[in-house]
Amino acid sequence: MLPRRTGVQSTAMNKPQDSAREVPSTPRVAIVGATGAVGRELLELLQERDFPLESLTLYSSARSAGKRLPFGDSELELTELPEHGDLEADIVFSSAGSRVSSAAAWDWAAHGATVVDNTSAWRMDERVPLVVPEVNADAIRGHRGIIANPNCSIIVALMALAPLHRAFGLRRATIATYQAVSGAGAAGIDELREQSRATLAGEPLRREKFAHPIAFNLFSHDSDVGMDGYNDEETKMRLEARKILGLPGLKLSATCVRVPVFRAHSEAIHAEFDVPVTAGMAREQLAAAPGVRLVDDRDANTFPMPLSASGKDDILVGRLRDDTSLDGGLAFFLAGDQIRKGAALNSVQIAEQLLH
Amino acid sequence: MLPRRTGVQSTAMNKPQDSAREVPSTPRVAIVGATGAVGRELLELLQERDFPLESLTLYSSARSAGKRLPFGDSELELTELPEHGDLEADIVFSSAGSRVSSAAAWDWAAHGATVVDNTSAWRMDERVPLVVPEVNADAIRGHRGIIANPNCSIIVALMALAPLHRAFGLRRATIATYQAVSGAGAAGIDELREQSRATLAGEPLRREKFAHPIAFNLFSHDSDVGMDGYNDEETKMRLEARKILGLPGLKLSATCVRVPVFRAHSEAIHAEFDVPVTAGMAREQLAAAPGVRLVDDRDANTFPMPLSASGKDDILVGRLRDDTSLDGGLAFFLAGDQIRKGAALNSVQIAEQLLH
Repeated sequence: MLPRRTGVQSTAMNKPQDSAREVPSTPRVAIVGATGAVGRELLELLQERDFPLESLTLYSSARSAGKRLPFGDSELELTELPEHGDLEADIVFSSAGSRVSSAAAWDWAAHGATVVDNTSAWRMDERVPLVVPEVNADAIRGHRGIIANPNCSIIVALMALAPLHRAFGLRRATIATYQAVSGAGAAGIDELREQSRATLAGEPLRREKFAHPIAFNLFSHDSDVGMDGYNDEETKMRLEARKILGLPGLKLSATCVRVPVFRAHSEAIHAEFDVPVTAGMAREQLAAAPGVRLVDDRDANTFPMPLSASGKDDILVGRLRDDTSLDGGLAFFLAGDQIRKGAALNSVQIAEQLLH
Repeated sequence: MLPRRTGVQSTAMNKPQDSAREVPSTPRVAIVGATGAVGRELLELLQERDFPLESLTLYSSARSAGKRLPFGDSELELTELPEHGDLEADIVFSSAGSRVSSAAAWDWAAHGATVVDNTSAWRMDERVPLVVPEVNADAIRGHRGIIANPNCSIIVALMALAPLHRAFGLRRATIATYQAVSGAGAAGIDELREQSRATLAGEPLRREKFAHPIAFNLFSHDSDVGMDGYNDEETKMRLEARKILGLPGLKLSATCVRVPVFRAHSEAIHAEFDVPVTAGMAREQLAAAPGVRLVDDRDANTFPMPLSASGKDDILVGRLRDDTSLDGGLAFFLAGDQIRKGAALNSVQIAEQLLH
């Protein structure tokens, strides 16, 4: 391990440690980007799950430094993220955006931290495990200082697809998403709220966060569209699923859509397996899957909804049925809190694995 | 043709005429259920399209009889729907619900009317053509007095799938819908508006129309769920697509979801054909398809949206791309006004075919 506070900075970038470092059972923890939606959820989860803490340091931009955030019965003051890479932490949760993680995560790691990165910066880097603990906790072993938290939409999908894959061998999946605005941060939430108010009042809409109106509307996901017509969110889902499941040839096609929902992503999924799978076989696997709750009441027409998934740890799965378009195929629907299991909770679960 | 005003009533039910009747080029027209969302849209479209009218009679329940609805520069008074079957019309647009059409449509037909039925009552009856004029106008010939207007979600889907089928031979489709509340009538619109207001004001939600909250939420379609786990809307889509396309073995699986959008349904579709189809091949067919408008600007991230489809005759189609989960498969997204092309416009187009 490098000595701490040596001023080693960007020189350490792209020079990961070769062996996994030990994390103390009561670690010093830092959050980079504590003021964002995921940062705040991290604070709540560390408290809620009694995460052992030697110290907890919250880093922010210069603009937010000095402000205070509640933590349990007390408050924590935000500290400006230092340019030197020593965050005085054994575990760093990074959720200040891809640019910050791209520039500094290896540097933090070189100063002894294990970085749980909740940005897209290093997810597809072969040196970096991409982890959903219920799916591939083993991948954490042998990390070199950075562990990546996957894209929220694919975490939510894999919570159901992975146990089905273990039982039946996943071959192909198509996914249509119904994604909440909170995936675009607090500004997305504000925009949906303000545009909804304006629509009901008959006033013109102002657009700041999204290029298109979100109130009482929906649109193709607000990420760049590639040469193949897939937007970045859809491409992430395909590539990250392959890496997490260890299926480089997995056939997956997603259509990602932003809907006027504040929180929790929903997804309609069709899946094909190595063997014919019935709804009953799938139900049996999913009933036993950790982090999954079956919500599949046909008589009451009660199935997964974003409102019922919001604030919950579990991914709600239902509408399990034989695919009428493919013998042996499966169709289902799910909803999951993309800030919680799709981001903050998954990161804390990764950190909990590090303590073992 | 039976003599008119003979008092022939329910005895005529299920006894369709064997030969198609002539409709005059300037017909007497009646609307049953004129006060509903589709009824009002019918009035607007008859006006907008200069539909030739010898007379126009609006029938309603006893409760609404005597009220007036605007038509062009004048107003028309609502008449209570008579129990005898003579609506004094050559063309009857029926959109007062499945129960009314089930009970009376053959009776109206026996009195000489050609019924364009915008309910689910007779769609799957083998004596009744199920028609989307751009797709299967020929099926109108030989009708026996009733022509059925298909389910809105499948009309919208087929406007794109049918031209692709003609060119490439449709084998299989999976569809995830994003359906507006106006599909559930004026009460659905009111509920979304009122619940949205209440949510923004921090007040508790009242539920009347839908079993689950619709404001800032979404849920599996509010129709009954069958033994196979598919709800009625999804089953209609599968069965009606087969009948309209004349493909009794078509493999189709839909997931129908109600979203907090006032008007226009959107759908994410994956389709497989007899031959491999690229996005470019599909684009060429759809660019030439009547009633379809391509909205597929990848650079601007502008694709079909319910707000841009609302009030439009055309179905907006975009996000055309090669399916990354299936060689030769196609993925796309569309949005269409389900009250207009999904109901009233399609009915008026059927009636226009009758005039020829």
